[in-house]
Amino acid sequence: MDILHRVGIKAPLERVYGALATVGGVAGWLTSTQGSGEVGGVIKLRFTSADGREVGGCDAKVLELRPAERVLWQVIEGPPEWVGTKIGFDLRQAGDYSVVLFKQADWKQATEFMHHCSTKWAIFLMSLKALVETGRGTPSPHDAQIGDLS
Amino acid sequence: MDILHRVGIKAPLERVYGALATVGGVAGWLTSTQGSGEVGGVIKLRFTSADGREVGGCDAKVLELRPAERVLWQVIEGPPEWVGTKIGFDLRQAGDYSVVLFKQADWKQATEFMHHCSTKWAIFLMSLKALVETGRGTPSPHDAQIGDLS
Repeated sequence: MDILHRVGIKAPLERVYGALATVGGVAGWLTSTQGSGEVGGVIKLRFTSADGREVGGCDAKVLELRPAERVLWQVIEGPPEWVGTKIGFDLRQAGDYSVVLFKQADWKQATEFMHHCSTKWAIFLMSLKALVETGRGTPSPHDAQIGDLS
Repeated sequence: MDILHRVGIKAPLERVYGALATVGGVAGWLTSTQGSGEVGGVIKLRFTSADGREVGGCDAKVLELRPAERVLWQVIEGPPEWVGTKIGFDLRQAGDYSVVLFKQADWKQATEFMHHCSTKWAIFLMSLKALVETGRGTPSPHDAQIGDLS
């Protein structure tokens, strides 16, 4: 079972790729990110609440980086339901837009947490779009500006 | 293959149910809706562009209405990939929140359109949340205020 999303971003592929393929880029739309964004490296995503407490996170290994085409991670530590899932971003040009096809693949069960993560990924992909198009995303903990799902 | 989402809405179950189980309610967060919202009836969802052109839609039969618990539709006409899919909203109380578990079930293929619809459902469920919490949703064609996916 997979979480799927698609967003069109009015920007060149290279700019979208930069926001996905670097630790600094990811921090601009998803959440606080440390570690190595190189292939074989591990990126550490840490989510915080509005008052700065750490409320979750995961470590993901970078499996693939194909400039302007593909970024692929695999979760190696974090919520049990996330461990082993692959998180991929496939890019292609469509006129003035860069299309991002997102997939978090290989969930074992369609739990309530999977429903929640699907909605949150959509919100973070809107944040990616805003970051690339306007220079300002809403990474965690600012994602609640778009939708506090509770 | 299913599209899954979850939103928490700070309101009583009855108000969330009302926005899902009536034609007028659905029009307030999803799109222009006509037809009969009763069990066995057919609701007609029509999406329009910002300049008022009809850009798509579907007809869905109402399979189940369980007050404050469940709304279930089945698409009987519309995009070929939608026909036969079941669209369900399961509700439950969690403290001050009503939790909506959304599922559009039984997609035959994980097409790019399925990716797109997954993201759009998240945006419309944010609109449902806004409608119930603030009295003002962003149904089509106002959904682009949240995210023009192109």
